[in-house]
Amino acid sequence: MRGVFIGRFQPPHMGHFLAIKWCFENTDIEELIIVVGSAQRSHTIKDPFTAGERIEMLRLGLKELGIDLGRVIIIPVPDIAMNNVWVRYLEMLLPRFEIVFSRNPLVVRLFEEYGYKVIKPPSIKRDVYMATYIRELMLRSNQEWMNYVPKSVAEYIVSIEGHKRLLDIAGDDR
Amino acid sequence: MRGVFIGRFQPPHMGHFLAIKWCFENTDIEELIIVVGSAQRSHTIKDPFTAGERIEMLRLGLKELGIDLGRVIIIPVPDIAMNNVWVRYLEMLLPRFEIVFSRNPLVVRLFEEYGYKVIKPPSIKRDVYMATYIRELMLRSNQEWMNYVPKSVAEYIVSIEGHKRLLDIAGDDR
Amino acid sequence: MRGVFIGRFQPPHMGHFLAIKWCFENTDIEELIIVVGSAQRSHTIKDPFTAGERIEMLRLGLKELGIDLGRVIIIPVPDIAMNNVWVRYLEMLLPRFEIVFSRNPLVVRLFEEYGYKVIKPPSIKRDVYMATYIRELMLRSNQEWMNYVPKSVAEYIVSIEGHKRLLDIAGDDR
Amino acid sequence: MRGVFIGRFQPPHMGHFLAIKWCFENTDIEELIIVVGSAQRSHTIKDPFTAGERIEMLRLGLKELGIDLGRVIIIPVPDIAMNNVWVRYLEMLLPRFEIVFSRNPLVVRLFEEYGYKVIKPPSIKRDVYMATYIRELMLRSNQEWMNYVPKSVAEYIVSIEGHKRLLDIAGDDR
Amino acid sequence: MRGVFIGRFQPPHMGHFLAIKWCFENTDIEELIIVVGSAQRSHTIKDPFTAGERIEMLRLGLKELGIDLGRVIIIPVPDIAMNNVWVRYLEMLLPRFEIVFSRNPLVVRLFEEYGYKVIKPPSIKRDVYMATYIRELMLRSNQEWMNYVPKSVAEYIVSIEGHKRLLDIAGDDR
Amino acid sequence: MRGVFIGRFQPPHMGHFLAIKWCFENTDIEELIIVVGSAQRSHTIKDPFTAGERIEMLRLGLKELGIDLGRVIIIPVPDIAMNNVWVRYLEMLLPRFEIVFSRNPLVVRLFEEYGYKVIKPPSIKRDVYMATYIRELMLRSNQEWMNYVPKSVAEYIVSIEGHKRLLDIAGDDR
Repeated sequence: MRGVFIGRFQPPHMGHFLAIKWCFENTDIEELIIVVGSAQRSHTIKDPFTAGERIEMLRLGLKELGIDLGRVIIIPVPDIAMNNVWVRYLEMLLPRFEIVFSRNPLVVRLFEEYGYKVIKPPSIKRDVYMATYIRELMLRSNQEWMNYVPKSVAEYIVSIEGHKRLLDIAGDDR
Repeated sequence: MRGVFIGRFQPPHMGHFLAIKWCFENTDIEELIIVVGSAQRSHTIKDPFTAGERIEMLRLGLKELGIDLGRVIIIPVPDIAMNNVWVRYLEMLLPRFEIVFSRNPLVVRLFEEYGYKVIKPPSIKRDVYMATYIRELMLRSNQEWMNYVPKSVAEYIVSIEGHKRLLDIAGDDR
Repeated sequence: MRGVFIGRFQPPHMGHFLAIKWCFENTDIEELIIVVGSAQRSHTIKDPFTAGERIEMLRLGLKELGIDLGRVIIIPVPDIAMNNVWVRYLEMLLPRFEIVFSRNPLVVRLFEEYGYKVIKPPSIKRDVYMATYIRELMLRSNQEWMNYVPKSVAEYIVSIEGHKRLLDIAGDDR
Repeated sequence: MRGVFIGRFQPPHMGHFLAIKWCFENTDIEELIIVVGSAQRSHTIKDPFTAGERIEMLRLGLKELGIDLGRVIIIPVPDIAMNNVWVRYLEMLLPRFEIVFSRNPLVVRLFEEYGYKVIKPPSIKRDVYMATYIRELMLRSNQEWMNYVPKSVAEYIVSIEGHKRLLDIAGDDR
Repeated sequence: MRGVFIGRFQPPHMGHFLAIKWCFENTDIEELIIVVGSAQRSHTIKDPFTAGERIEMLRLGLKELGIDLGRVIIIPVPDIAMNNVWVRYLEMLLPRFEIVFSRNPLVVRLFEEYGYKVIKPPSIKRDVYMATYIRELMLRSNQEWMNYVPKSVAEYIVSIEGHKRLLDIAGDDR
Repeated sequence: MRGVFIGRFQPPHMGHFLAIKWCFENTDIEELIIVVGSAQRSHTIKDPFTAGERIEMLRLGLKELGIDLGRVIIIPVPDIAMNNVWVRYLEMLLPRFEIVFSRNPLVVRLFEEYGYKVIKPPSIKRDVYMATYIRELMLRSNQEWMNYVPKSVAEYIVSIEGHKRLLDIAGDDR
């Protein structure tokens, strides 16, 4: 049985990785598809990283947390401007799946209308394991963000100067 | 070091899998990204299978041939109507890569103009290990096609009645 | 002579239907094209219903108000990202028309720049016959919204649990 | 119960209208949705007429053949480049339907894979009631084409000089 | 050597023209490509003018300021929804260039990540030479805006009633 | 008065340049807009050069033939998949124009349906001044192609190895 886990991963943080771990440990899935949503976006405050960078970070973090990469299928998915068609669009791009993992209200609704079973993985320390908050810390040059992502992900972001990208983009043209 | 291997995989056949094996055995790559091109296409004579189906077949064949799935990253990539932008578009969707494997003249040219090193893996039994020929056999209901794909891929195609899909599409409206 | 009446109809309400009635009663049009705009959108707070659902609601309401469906042509029109081209895009998708009915400032301007005659149908009870207000009531689970759409439209929305869709989408991921 | 009838209607001819009549007379449908496919295309040899023109012709022919326009819903549908998503895309744009009428092999296959019941209406005089043949006659300036469309449709084509459009487009730039 | 100067020019104002002049006078460029960004947009408060109108205004202003039109190449560029691909997309549409002139933080970042040298032309009287401010004045029907664009540009805007377009669009549908 | 001259310019050849000269010498136009069509295409047998390369070649050839670059406006225009909308799309991207120069049957028809006056410039030595023929010569490595483009254009193509690009793309994957 295959499950699908959906996110934008800007960036992937401990909350994502613990939830993914939870999926493997608490359900019968043999493989998990991870959908990297809004794959066409990057270089904005809300979506700083490219899909390729997000895939690299996911693989680093999964390895660090001891999850078998052979059982994970990471798929970048560009947005489609038609919500009612989106689930079918995923069915086109993804190997067949039976369970959906998500807490996002729109995602849950779209899959349920389509007839899929949706499981909400537990929300873990959402006050800090939250991408919006992590990007805010980066924008304030507060290194505390490094505590909320796996060590290998933090190192990767530093190596591509991802935090500096955020600061640059947030600049003005004065 | 990462390499990228590009194809449409309609369907993936022994020629693909042997070439992928060759890449791992003859170069220093640790990981290989497999790009499933024209990911938006399916249900035509030339492109019968969805991206999701092609990913499933690739994973089945790789497993059958003993290639470690943890070292392979399969990415479906929809066409972009601008050849000159295509390599950069791949750079957006894919983890960083250093080598490109392809024999397709346009692919080779686009990557070389962009500055990438391209390696042509050897062509193996191209008279029968060729997707066009395999689809032709299917259209003639000639089961010989099963000899040219891994056993697990043949079983998958039969299980989704993929050969029947081709015959249906090729019908007329009389 | 044909007229065109333009809206998003999220959902169609009494204000729309009375204005449509007004068009038939106060001008020489024999047929009225109703454009269902932003046809690609659904499942958002601002655009909860699919184009197909909006067409069904329009037909129900028109029937209820005694308007001859044989004289009405309902056309779903996806957005095009070029305002200056939009009127010509409508000319491609719609049967020929001579008059435009709209109160929307952008719509009026675009048609007038293009040379069309635009008539503003009277605005009726806009404090309650307003889609934004009706969606707000739904979000507050205030059944009063049923007073502002035809009975058949209210029944349809209830039958597809449209008000619940709005509440679901407005949820958070805690 | 609603049915859907799918075509490109370049132009709509007697074969289409007789098949539509057959659908009303031989099944339990109360309403029929007519999908005008490839709605974005016009001004080519294969697709000379705009979606708007095709809708006008359909309405003229239906009226001439005594079909109640109040029971017909004509929807122009632009192509979407993803066959596997196409049926869901129709579900977004169209009111709910239960039966599909088509003889086109791809259309039949796509709807059946999706779980719809497809009925093939009888093929009537396909040697002459065929849009390709009618366009060929127009290109040869052979007025015989007028025999194969309803009188009102022929008059409409003449009024917009549709046959001349075909000849113009087929010209060369010498 | 060629440079590229990037803007939306809604409308082009004295700040733009003085900066363009500065580029010619302070660097070795022989030709300057002027990119008219968001070329698909018009008829909104933020983007009132079409690309064609903006090109006309740029040419008028350049002539008025004595800049040789033969050394300027004005290219309208529609948005592409992928920031990481945007520079390559410009390389496709534009003649080869060596230097980039921009003060916009995102533009600077994207070109620098790609390896281009970016020069920030001086910011001149940005409190009034600013398109946002000029559009605000137009919306308040304050003719002071005419002081901040070249005389020929002001006359052009008046001739097409561009300020009235802004007011019309900003209207409501009461 | 402004005219517009439309082509794909793959590559621009003497026939194009002589026709452009003819437009300036035989009509009252003060400025000529040159539309570089199918601007998104490159790296195919039919469309080998990018829009940017074609603009460079046009400017080189115009200079060589003594045409004032200050009176020429070269605009790259990506295809739009809707013929009936195409003229309006050009009106969005181009400065206002009054006359159209073209011999292409579809272009002539689309502009005339829209109400423009179209002038067919004389066809000059079309047996050799023809882009298809020039690309064929390049594919046969027959240097005769250099006779049919301005000297500066031939030198540019050689400098970017444009003829080799054609040969590379035309290769096979054996």
